[in-house]
Parts: sequence; C-alpha cells; structure tokens
Amino acid sequence: MEIKKQIADKYLKTYMVEKDPGSAALIAFPTSTDEVVAFIKDANARKQPTITIGSQTGLTSATYPINNAWLLSLEKMNKIISLDEQTLTLTVQAGVTLFQIRDYLANTPYFYAPDPGNKNASVGGNASTNAGGMRAIKYGVTRDNIRGYDVVLANGDLIHVGSLNKKDATAYDLKDLFIGAEGTLGVITELQLKLTPRPAFEKSVILGFNSLDGVSDAIFEVVKSPVQPVALELLEESGIHYSEQFIQKKMPEVHGEAFLLATVADNAADGLAFQLEAIQALGKKAGAIEARELSEDEASEMWAIRDNILNGIVSRGDWKMYDPVVPNHLFTDLVKEAKRLGDKYHVQTGFFGHAGDGNIHICILRSDQDDETWEQIKHDYENDLFPYVAKQGGLLSAEHGIGLEKKAYLPYFKDDAYMAVLKSIKQAMDPNNILNPGKMFN
Amino acid sequence: MEIKKQIADKYLKTYMVEKDPGSAALIAFPTSTDEVVAFIKDANARKQPTITIGSQTGLTSATYPINNAWLLSLEKMNKIISLDEQTLTLTVQAGVTLFQIRDYLANTPYFYAPDPGNKNASVGGNASTNAGGMRAIKYGVTRDNIRGYDVVLANGDLIHVGSLNKKDATAYDLKDLFIGAEGTLGVITELQLKLTPRPAFEKSVILGFNSLDGVSDAIFEVVKSPVQPVALELLEESGIHYSEQFIQKKMPEVHGEAFLLATVADNAADGLAFQLEAIQALGKKAGAIEARELSEDEASEMWAIRDNILNGIVSRGDWKMYDPVVPNHLFTDLVKEAKRLGDKYHVQTGFFGHAGDGNIHICILRSDQDDETWEQIKHDYENDLFPYVAKQGGLLSAEHGIGLEKKAYLPYFKDDAYMAVLKSIKQAMDPNNILNPGKMFN
Repeated sequence: MEIKKQIADKYLKTYMVEKDPGSAALIAFPTSTDEVVAFIKDANARKQPTITIGSQTGLTSATYPINNAWLLSLEKMNKIISLDEQTLTLTVQAGVTLFQIRDYLANTPYFYAPDPGNKNASVGGNASTNAGGMRAIKYGVTRDNIRGYDVVLANGDLIHVGSLNKKDATAYDLKDLFIGAEGTLGVITELQLKLTPRPAFEKSVILGFNSLDGVSDAIFEVVKSPVQPVALELLEESGIHYSEQFIQKKMPEVHGEAFLLATVADNAADGLAFQLEAIQALGKKAGAIEARELSEDEASEMWAIRDNILNGIVSRGDWKMYDPVVPNHLFTDLVKEAKRLGDKYHVQTGFFGHAGDGNIHICILRSDQDDETWEQIKHDYENDLFPYVAKQGGLLSAEHGIGLEKKAYLPYFKDDAYMAVLKSIKQAMDPNNILNPGKMFN
Repeated sequence: MEIKKQIADKYLKTYMVEKDPGSAALIAFPTSTDEVVAFIKDANARKQPTITIGSQTGLTSATYPINNAWLLSLEKMNKIISLDEQTLTLTVQAGVTLFQIRDYLANTPYFYAPDPGNKNASVGGNASTNAGGMRAIKYGVTRDNIRGYDVVLANGDLIHVGSLNKKDATAYDLKDLFIGAEGTLGVITELQLKLTPRPAFEKSVILGFNSLDGVSDAIFEVVKSPVQPVALELLEESGIHYSEQFIQKKMPEVHGEAFLLATVADNAADGLAFQLEAIQALGKKAGAIEARELSEDEASEMWAIRDNILNGIVSRGDWKMYDPVVPNHLFTDLVKEAKRLGDKYHVQTGFFGHAGDGNIHICILRSDQDDETWEQIKHDYENDLFPYVAKQGGLLSAEHGIGLEKKAYLPYFKDDAYMAVLKSIKQAMDPNNILNPGKMFN
C-alpha cells in the first residue's frame, strides 16, 4: 500500500470550503479492503486519529485534516466490481465516483437514483453523509439506495452490513447507522448499490407564480396528490439572476417572479400525460399565472439555469451555504426568513433547492465586508437562522452533514439526552476515538 | 397508573405461539408517556427486567414473559392523536392497532401503507419488529412508513427520534435503530406515521404456471421491469388446499399448478391498463399458461384464498412457521428446498408469501408424531433450513423478528464481529440490561 508523508494540498482541504489546507501525519492509498483492515488495526493499536477521505467534495469540513491525523484516501479503491441484473445491484469500491457509475450504466436499462450535485463525489463519501439530491422526492436519498456494504470497524474487524434481500427483521439495523455517520463509526470500503429501471418517458413542467406564497401552496397540492414528480425544484429571482449571469443566457420566458420546475416520469405515455396535466392543474389551483409543459429545448435551458445557480454564486466571491430542511408546507416561510436575515445583516442571498423535500440551499454572499465583519455576519446569521429552523420542526442538515461547520449548532436540534445516546454509541464502537475524532460532536 | 399483580393469561403468552403462559411479577397499564418514563426509571433503579407488550400478536415469543419481569402493557395507550394533512402524518399512541388506523382513515384520501397479516397488532409492536406485509413490494416495510417517535430509554430519558422532514443528514440515524430492536433498546410510546395518498385505480391479475420454475422467472421479469405491483403473492397447491378446506370454497378456475397473484394500482386508468398488460406479457414470457385480469368478484375470491392460507394451516393442529427471505431470483428454490426438507422429515408443508420480496412463509404441520418427535423434527428442520437460507444470502427473518424462537439461529447469519457490535450497542444503551433481556441475543 502506498503511504506518503508529503501530502498534496488537494487531500488537505475539501472542495470549495476551507481557505487553507490542514495538516496530517501521512496519507495512505489502499487498493483493497484487506489493506484498510491492516491500516485501521495499526491506527487503533497506536490510538492514532484517522480520517477517511474520498473525493474531498464535502461541504462541511467533515474530512478536513485535524489532530495531525493519518489520512486514509480511498481514491484508488475505484473499481466497479459487478452488475447483478438478477437483484439489480451494482457492487463498487467506495472510491468510485458518481460520474463513473453514470457512465457505466449509460447503456443499461438501469440507473442509480441518487443525484447529488457534485458528480465527482465518491459513493463512499455519499454514503457517509447520506447525500440527497434532486431525485430524492421520488427515489429517496443515498440511504434508500444502498443495499449493503463492507465496513471496517475501529478495532479493525470487518463486517458486512445489509443484504440483497428486500425485507429484514433480523436483529438491529446497523445498515442505517454507518450511513450518515461521517466516517466516525467505521470505514465503508465496498458497497452494493440498488439500481432502478429507467422509466420510459420523462418531461418537465414549469409553474410561474407572482410570489413565493403561491409556490408554497403548489408544493403542498402536489405533495399530497398521487402525482410523484422525479424532481420539484424552486427557482427564484436571486438564484436565476446569478445563474443567468454565469451562463450568459436568459431563462426561457415564463410569467412570474418565482417558479417551480418539475420533472415527471412514467412508463406509459398516457400515464405521463396524466401526471403532466395534474401538475399543471394543481399549480393553477394554487395560483400559478403560467403553467405549461416545456419542450425538450426549453427543458434543457431551464435545467441549465437550475444547475448553474451555485456556480453563479461561487463565481462572485466569498459565500457560505446552508442546507436546512423543514416540513414541506413551511418551505417558503423558510426562504422568506432567510431573505429577511440577509437584509438584517446586509448580505445578498441566493437560493436553490428541493422544494418537494422542504430542503433549501441558502447562500449568503460576501460583498465588501472585511474579514472580521464577514466572520461575525456568518456567526450572527447562523445563530438567527438555525434556532428558527429548529422552531419550525426542521433540521440542521438535509444532505450535507455536520462535519466541523455545523457541529456548534447541533444542540439547537438535539437535546442532552439525545446527544448522550450519540456519544454512547460512538464510545461503544470506537473506544479509542480514532475514527474522524472531533467531527459532528466532541 | 393501574398496576396489577394478578395477571390475565392473555398478557402472559403471545398469540398462537406458546402453549403455556409465562410468569411475571406485575403488569402496568400506563396511559401516557410520562407514566412510562416513571415506570422505566423505577425499573432501572432496581435493575428490574421489564418487557413492553402490545397486542401480543408477535410470532417469535419476543414478548413472552421470562425472568420474572415487570410487564409494561401499552394497550391503554390507544389514542389516535392527530391527522396532519400538511405533512401527511398520523400521530398515534403506540398501543393503537392497525384496525383502528384503518377505520380512522377510511373516509380520508390517505392510507397507512404497511399491511402485516394481523390487524389486531399494535403499531408500537409493528415498529419493534419492523413488520412487513403484502404491500412492502411497493410501499416498503414499517420502517419506511414511520417518520418519527418518542422513545423512553433504559435510563428513563425520553427522546424524540426522526422528524417530519423528508431528508436528514443531521447526525447518526437513531430512527432506524429502535425500529426492529424488539423492545431491547427503548420503549416507543408515540409515533408519527407516514400516510400515502390512495391511488385512484386498482386491479388484480392472476398468472398460472405448470410449476414453480416458471413462477421464479416471472417474478424476476416483473421485478426488473418498470412495473411496480402493490402486491405479488405466491399461491401454490398446498397453501391453496388448506385455504379452500378452511373457507369451504374453491379458488376461481385458472390453469396451472402454481400461481402469482398481483395487484397493480395507478392514478390514471391508462397507466393501470399499461401495468396490467405489462404484467400479463411478462408472465407469458416467463411461461405462464394462463394470464388474465380478474373481475372484482374473482379478485375478492382469490384474495380470500390467499388470506386464509394461515387460518387453514392453523386449524389443522400443531404447526410452526418460519419467515426467511432470500434475493428474489432464489425465491422458488427456497420453496422447493423447504418442501424437500418436509419430505425428508415426514411432515406436511404449506407455503404463502411475498414473492415480490423474496419472503416466504414456510409452515410445517405436525401429524401423528409424539411430543418428543415433533420437537426433534422442528429442531432438525430448522438446522437444515437456516444454513441453506444463509448460504443463499438470505436472512433468518424477513418480518417476524428473532425473539426467543430464532435466537439460536442468529449465528448462522451474523458472525462474531457483527454480534459484538450488536452487544456493544445494547450494553451502551441499556447497561443494566433491563429492557426485554434475553430476547434476540444473550
């Protein structure tokens, strides 16, 4: 196994988040689960903090090197092992990226449903953050699309968790414990992913509203109806503005100030038609001033606007992004509150996200503030935003996780008794506290 | 809170499983979560084994009184608290039964999707066993239909787990840990259930095959197709025979020796038609000698046959039921092996179950064996069956759980390293071992 003490910067910071690289004692590049087992056994014997890293595309500094840790990079564990059509399972090493999976499945009738924004992300990283994405409204999040995996425990034991079976009442559910644990309970080395048959037909619809209020009603109507869109995304003026500037193209013309972009899919043309009509009717019932199907060209233009909102925001300078989630019907209230807080602290805001899931990405943008002021603004904004989200019954993170960035805010959402359970599980499973210590909670 | 030392037999044994009632020191009937908290705090201070019981409909003796335990019956926590149409959530106390939920929702456009056989079961019990049922193929198991709940920990702390949000990357997933834990990690007192909008159209199809082999191919074709039946059930000769005798009615005439009974649902009539046609075509491709839609009358007759297989078996005398699961394509192999083992040990067998999930219920029936022989046969049958299931990548229990009945067989499925994790979690969360000790594992 290759081990280096000279560590390239790309391994020492996560994509887009930290300014400066962290520091680590060494980096190892295993190519097999056996090598991971040996490495973790050694680390545990020495009580050596160890951080598993994938593509470093996380957004919470969950894999940022601290504690002079050993880094365990899974980037060379990048093999797609097998496609099993009998159980619709794709077995991959944890370092495989979403791009690799997409390309591999391109000529099959199946796809891997989770759709997080960054396709350079490794699937092991996706599992460790329980990544979400746009298709979660229909197909669920990463958790729902993993059948099983091999995971190396803190003591170096290797266990297989989950199975290819569709039902499981055989002892505690460990499968869902390591997923979303941000590498603090074990190292996932190989995964069995659930594949989904591709629907035969797919089409997009746009709904235009005079204000965010109508958007909220429309989301509610759609979500409680039997229509199940594949995606239901919010587009509002600030986000559209940043995206248009970035791609130097105008959004297709639709009346309104706030929009819902929906994609529906079906296996029968008539079933698709039913869903398309239903979504337009539900939108109009909720006050949409325009509701129509998009042509293929328009749909690809509209999705380009959606997909480039973050690029547009990032290209303007310093920014910070949050990913709270609230129950569906409180979604637009959250957007309005986040805007109001932006005004309060004199920062511009940009929004995009998953209206159908109640999950909005809130970005605040630095203008001409000095470093100290910008730090203070972020601190104050967060200490206004997160208690509001908690009061609404929402959560600190929908899909990016906690890492270092949000751990100070976890107590707004989880009380002492709850935190005690988390800590007792961590203590039981990693008594020497070697696996990504200091992330998520202390 | 009512507490009794004279305990009626119905609390001292589970439905249909044990011959003799167990014994317990007392039984308590709380009506609120606060009363449960006080009771568990007291039990923990005394290191007193405590068993939470619901409707006693379990099939694994998971709630059978041992250790001279205190019994905590939740039958008086039987209130439906609220229906929230904004989030499609039904909040109920844990003692509420599936019958209560069905009746409560009858005049709404929503339903609670899980469909375990015994509708007298309490939803708290369903959560604690992660109960499955016929609609799991489309809507998932109990786990997938619970948004959150209140749970009293072994130390008496009350925490709320889960939320009404659709995405969650906010620290470890505790929600799925208590579900299926058979009351060994906490006492679930109040639940927030996910409701599903009722589809507009529903119809059943029957596929008849010359043998079980065709059935297997048809399951495979359907499962990997984009059609998503609500139910896909196996009917084979022995099960049909017992059911027909019990209800004194013949099954509607269909050519074949083995059958798949499928229900499909859709919101558009054309979408339904597409699914109906597709299932028939896939069945024929796999060798069905008859494939047709059922009229409403025929469907209800056919489902009556399906629903009375277990009644038919039970009415004949002593029996034992197993609920293994294997990956879909190995389903009929499992049925054949279970039949072969029946022949080997000279017992009759009866089968019913969830072909679409790979989950079969295998019943063996006692004929004229004496007690000792019957015990030996069960022991031998199990020690042949379960290693076979394990070798196929299957699981010991799909939906009934482990309890006392199956705990001896868990090591066929989970190795020492895996069991060590289960035990370390139990030890961390219940250090005095008061919650249902001795069930699932020692």
